[in-house]
Amino acid sequence: MAKTPEPPYYAVIFSSKRTDVDEGYGTVAQRMVELASGQPGFLGVESARGTDGFGITVSYWTTLEAIAAWRAQGEHRIAQTNGRRKWYEHFEVRVAHVERAYHGP
Amino acid sequence: MAKTPEPPYYAVIFSSKRTDVDEGYGTVAQRMVELASGQPGFLGVESARGTDGFGITVSYWTTLEAIAAWRAQGEHRIAQTNGRRKWYEHFEVRVAHVERAYHGP
Repeated sequence: MAKTPEPPYYAVIFSSKRTDVDEGYGTVAQRMVELASGQPGFLGVESARGTDGFGITVSYWTTLEAIAAWRAQGEHRIAQTNGRRKWYEHFEVRVAHVERAYHGP
Repeated sequence: MAKTPEPPYYAVIFSSKRTDVDEGYGTVAQRMVELASGQPGFLGVESARGTDGFGITVSYWTTLEAIAAWRAQGEHRIAQTNGRRKWYEHFEVRVAHVERAYHGP
């Protein structure tokens, strides 16, 4: 669970359906988390994928500029290309401004 | 994958760690999706949970008022109480305003 500060901040919701193709997916996915964590403005990341191949990754950021910089990062761009070409059957990216947060229990 | 309209709209990001307690969890979780789908302002829902018990559910809504009405819905409130008492070890809810969306491949 990501330990994010009090809102406001930003969330990037990445919903995806995987193909059956492995070809380094796990290693690259792990590397992207590592890389993102080192980016300016990174606040945290959460990820879940079911056995049906549908997954959601939410990363949290301070600003839209931080998100844009991460999207343009070199190694990440290569991963994005591979994602479109072989790892994802379909994906949706939603950039959202977190306004309120609470937790339990 | 939820078929949402062009932004802006709202997202409720529900990140949770399940306990080992079953006690009707699956049935109630499914019922909540069914109920939410019938609420005014509901746009869609996406859900993924890994074998580690960590899951993310994102529901999409037209307005903050629609989200507040869903949170206050009677059967949903009972489910929330049971969630806090037995089904979730921990959860985080984040309400966010979706500003931009794109998809691939």
